[in-house]
Amino acid sequence: MNKPLRIGIAGLGTVGCGVVDIFQRNNALLNMRAKRDLEITCVSSQNKERARPVDTSAYEWVDNALDMASRDDVDVIVELIGGEEGVAKTLIEAALKNGKHVVTANKALLAHHGFSLAQLAEKNKVQLMYEAAVAGGIPIIKSMREGFAGNKITAVYGILNGTCNYILTEMRETGRDFETVLSEAQEKGFAEADPSFDVDGIDAAHKLCILSALAFGVKPDYKKLPVTGIRHITASDITYAEDLGYRIKLLGITHCKNGEIIQSVEPCLVHEDSTMGAVEGVFNTVLVEGDAIDHGQSIGRGAGAGPTGSSVVADIIDIARGYNVPTFGVPCEALSDANWADSGKWESRFYMHLSVTDRAGVLADIAHVLKENNVSVEALAQLSHNPDNPVSITLTTHKVAQENITKAINAIAGLPAVLTEPTMLRIEEI
Amino acid sequence: MNKPLRIGIAGLGTVGCGVVDIFQRNNALLNMRAKRDLEITCVSSQNKERARPVDTSAYEWVDNALDMASRDDVDVIVELIGGEEGVAKTLIEAALKNGKHVVTANKALLAHHGFSLAQLAEKNKVQLMYEAAVAGGIPIIKSMREGFAGNKITAVYGILNGTCNYILTEMRETGRDFETVLSEAQEKGFAEADPSFDVDGIDAAHKLCILSALAFGVKPDYKKLPVTGIRHITASDITYAEDLGYRIKLLGITHCKNGEIIQSVEPCLVHEDSTMGAVEGVFNTVLVEGDAIDHGQSIGRGAGAGPTGSSVVADIIDIARGYNVPTFGVPCEALSDANWADSGKWESRFYMHLSVTDRAGVLADIAHVLKENNVSVEALAQLSHNPDNPVSITLTTHKVAQENITKAINAIAGLPAVLTEPTMLRIEEI
Repeated sequence: MNKPLRIGIAGLGTVGCGVVDIFQRNNALLNMRAKRDLEITCVSSQNKERARPVDTSAYEWVDNALDMASRDDVDVIVELIGGEEGVAKTLIEAALKNGKHVVTANKALLAHHGFSLAQLAEKNKVQLMYEAAVAGGIPIIKSMREGFAGNKITAVYGILNGTCNYILTEMRETGRDFETVLSEAQEKGFAEADPSFDVDGIDAAHKLCILSALAFGVKPDYKKLPVTGIRHITASDITYAEDLGYRIKLLGITHCKNGEIIQSVEPCLVHEDSTMGAVEGVFNTVLVEGDAIDHGQSIGRGAGAGPTGSSVVADIIDIARGYNVPTFGVPCEALSDANWADSGKWESRFYMHLSVTDRAGVLADIAHVLKENNVSVEALAQLSHNPDNPVSITLTTHKVAQENITKAINAIAGLPAVLTEPTMLRIEEI
Repeated sequence: MNKPLRIGIAGLGTVGCGVVDIFQRNNALLNMRAKRDLEITCVSSQNKERARPVDTSAYEWVDNALDMASRDDVDVIVELIGGEEGVAKTLIEAALKNGKHVVTANKALLAHHGFSLAQLAEKNKVQLMYEAAVAGGIPIIKSMREGFAGNKITAVYGILNGTCNYILTEMRETGRDFETVLSEAQEKGFAEADPSFDVDGIDAAHKLCILSALAFGVKPDYKKLPVTGIRHITASDITYAEDLGYRIKLLGITHCKNGEIIQSVEPCLVHEDSTMGAVEGVFNTVLVEGDAIDHGQSIGRGAGAGPTGSSVVADIIDIARGYNVPTFGVPCEALSDANWADSGKWESRFYMHLSVTDRAGVLADIAHVLKENNVSVEALAQLSHNPDNPVSITLTTHKVAQENITKAINAIAGLPAVLTEPTMLRIEEI
């Protein structure tokens, strides 16, 4: 038998307790799979006295998590504190420098400082593992870094935030609006008191940033990522989209063509009968396009003690088995600065919804603007016709460059007959 | 730089040429990811002169594949010959004994001889890799053996045969019957001239057998696997199922409760709006249930040069990176003989279709048989009512033990008013 692998867990929130629970419940099975004993030696958290769903009394309590980095009885530091700066960053840096492996669920930290941390791990010949940072229980980091390692990856699409997907699913199923469903999600514990991180797309953007790095061999670069959340999506948008056979999903999209990358987080229309459209509620999914696999998609729970804990434990077992793979799939010296494509040239189909005054000539004005900007309409429907009410127009376009559709929508928004801010959403044919 | 990893490829059919193509196309990328050069040193196939889509002239041609096992310039043997006995088995055994790693796509061989081959690999401290053996381009072996290693796996469900899924999808979309669609699939190259291996479920059963071993830590045991194919599925069955909101899929199912395993390959009804029901055409999927992840599902192409080749190359890169994981996830001594549960006690919901004479009392007779066997009806529909034609009855049941529904269907089949063999299919709520 190999000697035990000794683990220190910093952070005993939902995921930290989930990890402890898995180790306690499946202890013999995990040791057999790892071919050595996996031992939690110490734990740390902000509040020692807080009631927790697991008993941690068998592990030494460390008041200051940073002390873990220099302990002789720790081989792996599990960082579940969170945050892109502060204790989490200091702890991980110290641990790597001291030759300890690190397992983390910290997507913000990796999106902002992934490259320098990968360099530290490489220099000190230890592993920096982060399966839990993206899409909870889905082993997508492993799939991309190992399972699809034969492929030149061309694109990645993901539903990466369970809170947003839950809200959009509830809105569709119940016809209620964003604010109502958000409040309910907060009551149920599916959304934070301050929901901005989730509903404004920031969390999804952190994850997408990591996926881009893995997919295309570039340094994570959070700054270059345009992000649109879901606050502006109305119950009507969802209904109109459904009438056309689509569902609205907050997608993280990253693709690479001729060495130039475009990435974005934004609500998009996807076909309701696609395997992407079928991913509902709190579930996450990641779809990877590669030159050999064509495409591969994974679905699973994106958060929670069990799923995220599962990914942390999988990383620990990998380390116990002697895992040795570069942090972002290639040696750090091979990671390049990304070349960003001009997203104005990004061609997609689009969906548009306009609320207009019911009078002659409006449609002609809109059609004129579209034509002027080379936007070709695929289908158009005028949804109500009541002299007392505004007329709803939904339309879908053929493929058009983003700069053209943006010019068109701005011009349309300025037409006197257009009553409210038009909605424009990308249609993704995946 | 580490020294090169030298590869011998035995078998240059679709997948073998796919592997060569990936190596040639993505050479620099693969070497960077593997952190060492990956070199094909020799190849072998039955017919040297056959026209192939790749140029193999740079590699030494070996007339007898078995000779590869003893070559000094080969570290990894890629076995793509196929078959559960014969050259493939002899080659793999010799290679493992000679301390060479083996990568194979041979599901039949692993289903029949997986345990003894795993013992050989373990004894000789080399890797026996088989990502390509199950579900083509989907990295499901890796997900189960590593990604979900923190979980006690409770069940696995898979659409594991692309030919069957293509046929069932075509039947549903076009309303045509099995034989017509099969013929067309054969013309298009989606089905073999002798389709039995696919449409009778044997191929899916081989794959399920491997997944059972991985999921529950048991020795692969192909003999204990009941298999029903899709030849008896009619266009009407598919329509009736669709009317109830279901699609018919050939599922591999394996689950474990209290240490007892039930496994089966059979056509089942799954919800049309589920992520399982949305997997159509030649695509495969595997859904894993575990105590931590809840459930995780992967979707991808199940066959073809690119997807299957991708999995072979991923295995090779793993080996190049120093991968060291037991063949079935745990050391051989920990693999147990499976305890098989009495499948008669397996409780599921069921779908039934009956074609009966249109006369008074028939429904009462059927209801009586169901009641006698403790089968509780959830919904029942009489689909046509024309004095000149038989009446179609479809019904779904509440959960009932397989032995009860089997007794009931046998008794119903014997009723004078029942005109044709009744259809009975399991409903899977996944």
